[in-house]
Amino acid sequence: MAVYTDVGDEELVAFVAAYDIGEVISFKGIAEGVENSNYLLQTTAGSHILTLYEKRVKPEDLPYFIGYMEHLAAQDIACPTPLHARDGNALRELCGRPAAIVTFLKGMWPRRILPGHCAQLGNAMARMHLAGAGFSMQRANSLSVGAWRGLFESCAARAHEVRDGLDSLLETEIGFLEANWPAGLPSGVCHADLFPDNVFFLDDRLSGVIDFYFACNDFYAYDIAICLNAWCFERDGSFNVTKAQLMLSEYRKVRPLADDELQALPVLARGSATRFLLTRLYDWLNHPEGAMVQPKDPLEYLGFLQFHQQISGPGAYGL
Amino acid sequence: MAVYTDVGDEELVAFVAAYDIGEVISFKGIAEGVENSNYLLQTTAGSHILTLYEKRVKPEDLPYFIGYMEHLAAQDIACPTPLHARDGNALRELCGRPAAIVTFLKGMWPRRILPGHCAQLGNAMARMHLAGAGFSMQRANSLSVGAWRGLFESCAARAHEVRDGLDSLLETEIGFLEANWPAGLPSGVCHADLFPDNVFFLDDRLSGVIDFYFACNDFYAYDIAICLNAWCFERDGSFNVTKAQLMLSEYRKVRPLADDELQALPVLARGSATRFLLTRLYDWLNHPEGAMVQPKDPLEYLGFLQFHQQISGPGAYGL
Repeated sequence: MAVYTDVGDEELVAFVAAYDIGEVISFKGIAEGVENSNYLLQTTAGSHILTLYEKRVKPEDLPYFIGYMEHLAAQDIACPTPLHARDGNALRELCGRPAAIVTFLKGMWPRRILPGHCAQLGNAMARMHLAGAGFSMQRANSLSVGAWRGLFESCAARAHEVRDGLDSLLETEIGFLEANWPAGLPSGVCHADLFPDNVFFLDDRLSGVIDFYFACNDFYAYDIAICLNAWCFERDGSFNVTKAQLMLSEYRKVRPLADDELQALPVLARGSATRFLLTRLYDWLNHPEGAMVQPKDPLEYLGFLQFHQQISGPGAYGL
Repeated sequence: MAVYTDVGDEELVAFVAAYDIGEVISFKGIAEGVENSNYLLQTTAGSHILTLYEKRVKPEDLPYFIGYMEHLAAQDIACPTPLHARDGNALRELCGRPAAIVTFLKGMWPRRILPGHCAQLGNAMARMHLAGAGFSMQRANSLSVGAWRGLFESCAARAHEVRDGLDSLLETEIGFLEANWPAGLPSGVCHADLFPDNVFFLDDRLSGVIDFYFACNDFYAYDIAICLNAWCFERDGSFNVTKAQLMLSEYRKVRPLADDELQALPVLARGSATRFLLTRLYDWLNHPEGAMVQPKDPLEYLGFLQFHQQISGPGAYGL
């Protein structure tokens, strides 16, 4: 839950006056998202989301994120569409921070994941992958395999505070991933953070995708691997192969998976588990006292990693 | 900023289905308020606020709070109106907690307090005091003078962590307040928490009052004293007598203040400052590590208390 920047009355009114969206009638901080400040902005023209980009987002990446959202919306992928002010700009400044207003997306993220959610996610993710093909900007994944050793080294000395032996386990795993990370798989624009709280449903139908602030160019199958972890494990840590099978089969109806992509899924899933384990570990060890954001449990992802370590191949995902 | 309870999909849909407000189209936690979980609930019928009452609110007090809101709304005081489910109940249960849906109030609380805000607050507070006269339920102020010594004793041993000498200063002040607290002043239903974030404005006009969860029967002038502290000090700690004068004069145009009420204002303002100093001190010393709510600075209210201690009479408020 996150509102890091308090926006003054006059500043808000002046900011909104630069758009053709009428007058402000309500402005409330939203207790979701951890990277940025998000407000529900209601005007005489309707509901919008105003986002102030805080320090974890690099300003130079914002044109990519904004451009990708506009590109997807133009291809009929349901997602927030950045509004342009009368000066033509979608990315502007408020309270000394980069800021944007995007359209309001109906729906709610699912608190309890059902198999049908996973099936629809597979379909939507594949459509996003296809739709992203025409997007010309590039952004490397700054949290892929090349970044993990550095992240690990910044946490290694204190990893044992979270779990005895976590440091050596991670060191071994990162070595494995560096040696076995695939190359040359089909790639393009990935959302790279398709967690349930970024996918909205309305009446059990997927109504759209939000939060494109980790989007990057990477293997499409890595995006899938992120979703295997984020959507297909139950709260008790068990892997729900029905959910995985539905997600993958619906994906493949829209964008077929090549054999090398399928074979790479277990190592990509280990990599994805390691990436979120590392960033959660970092946040767990470094969150300031009294912070407004409750850090997420890194050990959840240790369990996911250990599942993917012990399977014999992609058949474990219901393929 | 507060969302303490995560509401499941099916639970939400079942809860909303008991009202005549259509289908849910969006549900977002609101990053405001510190006592309860508040959600913006958009349905096909419009916007609403869904509140889950958390442990700091006593369930037995809820009928008073809900009844008071309904009473005020019926008297044309702009405030959220509790919705009744088809079974007739406004106070129901969700996720094991008492819960209510109230109407959505347009407007925003002022981030920067202008004299005009204080003038309108005076008018609205007086109208609320008059409108509350016909409300028949009773609730004692559980955070008035009789509660302060106990609160102090629970913090006294650690008060010096916040400021050297704070313990003896508070002990002396509470003794003074116990000896000099007025009796027999005009009383009735008070909001008792009329801070700027509970008063909404739209186009610089007061659009309504929210958050009635400290409402109680007490001296009307004590409600005014709370507002002298909450609205009339600048961020640098100086007292803005123009704001106070406007607030009081607009109040008196609607509900005249008797001489004993005016004379009691300084001691009531000291009491109000002590009440918020004590509760903030308690929260400061007792907030759990990693809590989602940033505790407020108790020392802000020490400065307010010291201002009221050194004035010679209510003339210092511009009277």
